[in-house]
Amino acid sequence: MKIALINPNSTASMTDKVREAARKAAAPGTEILAANPADAPASIEGHYDEAASLAGLLREIKKAQMWGADAYVVACFDDPGLGACREIVTGPVLGICEAAMHIAATLATSFSVVTTLGRSTPIIEQAARRYGMAHLCKNVRAAEIPVLDLEQEDGSAAAKKIEQETRRAVAEDGCEAVILGCAGMADLAAELTQKCGVPVIDGVVCALKMCEAIVGAGLSTSKIGAYAPPRKK
Amino acid sequence: MKIALINPNSTASMTDKVREAARKAAAPGTEILAANPADAPASIEGHYDEAASLAGLLREIKKAQMWGADAYVVACFDDPGLGACREIVTGPVLGICEAAMHIAATLATSFSVVTTLGRSTPIIEQAARRYGMAHLCKNVRAAEIPVLDLEQEDGSAAAKKIEQETRRAVAEDGCEAVILGCAGMADLAAELTQKCGVPVIDGVVCALKMCEAIVGAGLSTSKIGAYAPPRKK
Amino acid sequence: MKIALINPNSTASMTDKVREAARKAAAPGTEILAANPADAPASIEGHYDEAASLAGLLREIKKAQMWGADAYVVACFDDPGLGACREIVTGPVLGICEAAMHIAATLATSFSVVTTLGRSTPIIEQAARRYGMAHLCKNVRAAEIPVLDLEQEDGSAAAKKIEQETRRAVAEDGCEAVILGCAGMADLAAELTQKCGVPVIDGVVCALKMCEAIVGAGLSTSKIGAYAPPRKK
Amino acid sequence: MKIALINPNSTASMTDKVREAARKAAAPGTEILAANPADAPASIEGHYDEAASLAGLLREIKKAQMWGADAYVVACFDDPGLGACREIVTGPVLGICEAAMHIAATLATSFSVVTTLGRSTPIIEQAARRYGMAHLCKNVRAAEIPVLDLEQEDGSAAAKKIEQETRRAVAEDGCEAVILGCAGMADLAAELTQKCGVPVIDGVVCALKMCEAIVGAGLSTSKIGAYAPPRKK
Amino acid sequence: MKIALINPNSTASMTDKVREAARKAAAPGTEILAANPADAPASIEGHYDEAASLAGLLREIKKAQMWGADAYVVACFDDPGLGACREIVTGPVLGICEAAMHIAATLATSFSVVTTLGRSTPIIEQAARRYGMAHLCKNVRAAEIPVLDLEQEDGSAAAKKIEQETRRAVAEDGCEAVILGCAGMADLAAELTQKCGVPVIDGVVCALKMCEAIVGAGLSTSKIGAYAPPRKK
Amino acid sequence: MKIALINPNSTASMTDKVREAARKAAAPGTEILAANPADAPASIEGHYDEAASLAGLLREIKKAQMWGADAYVVACFDDPGLGACREIVTGPVLGICEAAMHIAATLATSFSVVTTLGRSTPIIEQAARRYGMAHLCKNVRAAEIPVLDLEQEDGSAAAKKIEQETRRAVAEDGCEAVILGCAGMADLAAELTQKCGVPVIDGVVCALKMCEAIVGAGLSTSKIGAYAPPRKK
Repeated sequence: MKIALINPNSTASMTDKVREAARKAAAPGTEILAANPADAPASIEGHYDEAASLAGLLREIKKAQMWGADAYVVACFDDPGLGACREIVTGPVLGICEAAMHIAATLATSFSVVTTLGRSTPIIEQAARRYGMAHLCKNVRAAEIPVLDLEQEDGSAAAKKIEQETRRAVAEDGCEAVILGCAGMADLAAELTQKCGVPVIDGVVCALKMCEAIVGAGLSTSKIGAYAPPRKK
Repeated sequence: MKIALINPNSTASMTDKVREAARKAAAPGTEILAANPADAPASIEGHYDEAASLAGLLREIKKAQMWGADAYVVACFDDPGLGACREIVTGPVLGICEAAMHIAATLATSFSVVTTLGRSTPIIEQAARRYGMAHLCKNVRAAEIPVLDLEQEDGSAAAKKIEQETRRAVAEDGCEAVILGCAGMADLAAELTQKCGVPVIDGVVCALKMCEAIVGAGLSTSKIGAYAPPRKK
Repeated sequence: MKIALINPNSTASMTDKVREAARKAAAPGTEILAANPADAPASIEGHYDEAASLAGLLREIKKAQMWGADAYVVACFDDPGLGACREIVTGPVLGICEAAMHIAATLATSFSVVTTLGRSTPIIEQAARRYGMAHLCKNVRAAEIPVLDLEQEDGSAAAKKIEQETRRAVAEDGCEAVILGCAGMADLAAELTQKCGVPVIDGVVCALKMCEAIVGAGLSTSKIGAYAPPRKK
Repeated sequence: MKIALINPNSTASMTDKVREAARKAAAPGTEILAANPADAPASIEGHYDEAASLAGLLREIKKAQMWGADAYVVACFDDPGLGACREIVTGPVLGICEAAMHIAATLATSFSVVTTLGRSTPIIEQAARRYGMAHLCKNVRAAEIPVLDLEQEDGSAAAKKIEQETRRAVAEDGCEAVILGCAGMADLAAELTQKCGVPVIDGVVCALKMCEAIVGAGLSTSKIGAYAPPRKK
Repeated sequence: MKIALINPNSTASMTDKVREAARKAAAPGTEILAANPADAPASIEGHYDEAASLAGLLREIKKAQMWGADAYVVACFDDPGLGACREIVTGPVLGICEAAMHIAATLATSFSVVTTLGRSTPIIEQAARRYGMAHLCKNVRAAEIPVLDLEQEDGSAAAKKIEQETRRAVAEDGCEAVILGCAGMADLAAELTQKCGVPVIDGVVCALKMCEAIVGAGLSTSKIGAYAPPRKK
Repeated sequence: MKIALINPNSTASMTDKVREAARKAAAPGTEILAANPADAPASIEGHYDEAASLAGLLREIKKAQMWGADAYVVACFDDPGLGACREIVTGPVLGICEAAMHIAATLATSFSVVTTLGRSTPIIEQAARRYGMAHLCKNVRAAEIPVLDLEQEDGSAAAKKIEQETRRAVAEDGCEAVILGCAGMADLAAELTQKCGVPVIDGVVCALKMCEAIVGAGLSTSKIGAYAPPRKK
């Protein structure tokens, strides 16, 4: 099985981190492609960055289809362009926010999200509501670190803040699980799960594994409605 | 007051229709700019078209700001890119779907939407839910005409289908108003209101008038959260 | 265009304030009538006051129709009697709570409301839910000042409390805008917007401007369902 | 125990019917007062009639308190003025729509409502939503008979239409119970339950019995928030 | 009228308390049966205890039907097995959580719940959502006392904690009523209502009184859908 | 990886079908255990059957843990006893209804469910609402065939009815995918997907694959709240 993970921003170190997390979690027969557009914003921090990333994201999705991908992950927690991607390829396309929330819903009766910047909080709250998960989402917490701080050579300061915020979520929100709200946190989940005593859930791995699950189940995107191929003009 | 209406597709005849509808409804002191990107899809029929239109839309919004716009209308019923537009300009930005729904909510206890193609139905249903209007929206009906059929020299066949679907909405849905679900229907609202005995609401005029209202009230987009200017990378 | 604003309580100084706010914000061609019943409660603080104000409100609405009003504003944040008013006149009728919330929804991803007394908090929470705006409403805060304190010769003590509560809303609620939850605060919005760095939204002006917008769009209340004229007995 | 049922319209025959239904269902020790204002609309068919009935309703509620009522029923399916009544008396106040819905929720997983005129349909849909019962309410059906047709000497034509609509609700809506959406149908419930094979629920009796239940439980309206006594001006 | 209250756990002292509370509140003609299975968990603290209690609960319900019960109360705040009970008997079956919430909804615009252990909080939050009462439920608070602490000879330490949590609910949650979230608190409601100045609502008495109300109204469980008798295999 | 699928009814042929579907879809390294209690109802058709199946289900779950299961599937579309199972084992526990809905949500903007008997319709509607999927669920359709008809030697009559109802769902409901609402339909999904042109989704395979995904992601049930181990009494 071939699964493509597209990081829609242009920061290669984040793509590397995504690839690494996926490789560790992939099933034996799964081949991983991780890619990012060269001409996208360096990080996705808000609606404008999302919009500015779409052309590159769609191009990379098409390239991945040429490569023979069976399924696709959009590796940004804002889940940008999911509908558009679903229209242009036949394999399933998973967002990392939706994947994390769907899996969290089977492991806990509630979760909080720990993300980077406060400006992303309303975007994530809206996603929870769009996915029907608002009743499970106790809180969206921003550690107030820019996305790219997670990519610095010594990312330990950022990681420390994420841990603090995760601990506060458990202590104060009454949540039973924590979702990490940025693809750049994919390397932190396992250790935080150990340290914090609750499932700390990374969407990159969730989306990869749900892709494997869906392909393995012989299912794919419905093509009779909203996700039909784009109309020729 | 200067109001810019951006049609995010590349079909100039639709932009003309939007401009004409806006001019007729504008207050005496309102100056209208109607524009469209040259390099966008010819019509917005689904998520991919939306995504493909964003770069052009954002470029035109920026141009409109240079022109001195006080407010902006995104003249496509999918309300593409509203968040991104709100980040990059200071004046209010209105979508035509949201404007039509907010106004309908004050005129009737329910509405149905009549749109072009069935593939847009889920997009509009999701918009109604996102805006908190799902409880008012009795039905989304597709006349099953491609958007560009509304632009043909003799658009009377398309107009006829819209009228039929509007009448069926009133007769069958138990709705008290009908919203026209495409910018290309802006010229049909007044006549259909007359013919069908209910408010038939066009979002282009609603968005224009809400822009005038908001600017006239001295209000603008909040800049402390989700709509703060994009971060420098 | 002629727009009537009815303050449903009997306090003339509040009617004056409403008239003044409306005049400042009205479009050049808009003629304003502001009136209140003589025999209503001096302020609307709860359901009983609302009920007790309705006979007078409906009488004033009818008078305003004789005057030739094109549209009507009910200038009390509880939005009393909107349905009844909509049945007896043909022009649009706007409540100041609904108008503020519909406009806030286009300027911010969330808002808090600052009102007078805690007993009005559940009424406003229910309004937000009724209008489909509960997901945007982060909090309803009461400054715990009786309505008429806003009308005292030197209203600065009350104004100070409103400002404090507005600042706390911004600091503590994670909201991106603040709605002033009483017609008697109409004179405070502009200054608070300046001081607090977020849109501080007054419903009186919002309702006035939405009336201008709706009349200018050639729309009016649907008369085929819930808002049909009262049946003769 | 003394329970007052106020029919907020001026039609004495409907008050008689309400009294009769209450007497039949009352517990041995329950004393019934049924009254109506003389100066109210002859029937409540829409928001205006509701508003026009409130002054009389509140007067009758106060009289009933003088009589020594332990609890109060507002015997109109629009549940007009509940909040205002709750502020001015200390005993519990039940609406017949809310009582019917709360009881239906414990007897069936869904219900439909059969009411008089279509103009009341949105009012009842909004009530279901306000009470948190929208997910249980499969349909609101109007038999399209004016309220007073239920009061004609030979009410059998109206009763026949109610029966037809009740049978259609069971056959077509997938509902498990039917609520009669007008106080004037109180005499029909028992027979329709027999005939139609589902609980056919009359709100007058439900509200009476819930009043007995609440008084018997030693409970009453909370007086610390929205239902505190009206403030002195 | 004969009403059976089944405590689904095996703790006889709790059954005694339930019987006592019911006797005090029952109408003159009401005969009370209170019973519990011998082989159930000693207390219901979570989903597993619920599941483990069902066989005994259903057996006791059947016995109560042999006894001639007109209605049934399941006296555990998790409302376990309501659907199953409704299938196997013809009389109405009330849960104490649902009864308390339906009655609270007519007495106050909001409530908080005070329960025993934090592990029950999500169960009660889900119940509130299932019953359509989430918008009324300000908070679910756990006093963090095991259920059986309420049964100790001198229960005053537990009662003290319940009182503290009830007072905090009133002071901090903005609620207008408090629901006691465990059958074992049935003896505390009256005194706490006195002390705390809001309705403090016990579900055992609410369910008993609603049973009397429903039987007295001549109503019973619908048998055409979800609550039809179990199918023979 | 070892995954246990428990069919909570006593019909071994259905367990065989579940095992077979799981084996076909399992990843290479996945070992399957499929079991059912001997003393459960022969089929789960309603709340009583659910309740009657729980003791056996929990016993089989415990046995599966002894066998060394890494994850568990409860193979009945009512998702009985999920919470209880999650308390007593450490590995993830998936219901087939929840798994099907979570996966459907990533493949289509809406789905309908085709189930066996109408009495299960409200149970499935409530599940959709509980899982936050009600906005995606266009319809729940009953083919009105008893569960065990699916197990008859020549199941083609039942299969034909399922196919008819699936086709009607696509034609009439406006849904983009169909979920099969019974474990006994697990063998029909692939062929119906082919025939009907939409994803026809079987929950057994979805739950199995989500188990593999969750275990592969290193995640498991949260143990700090509602799913903590049962308390010792």
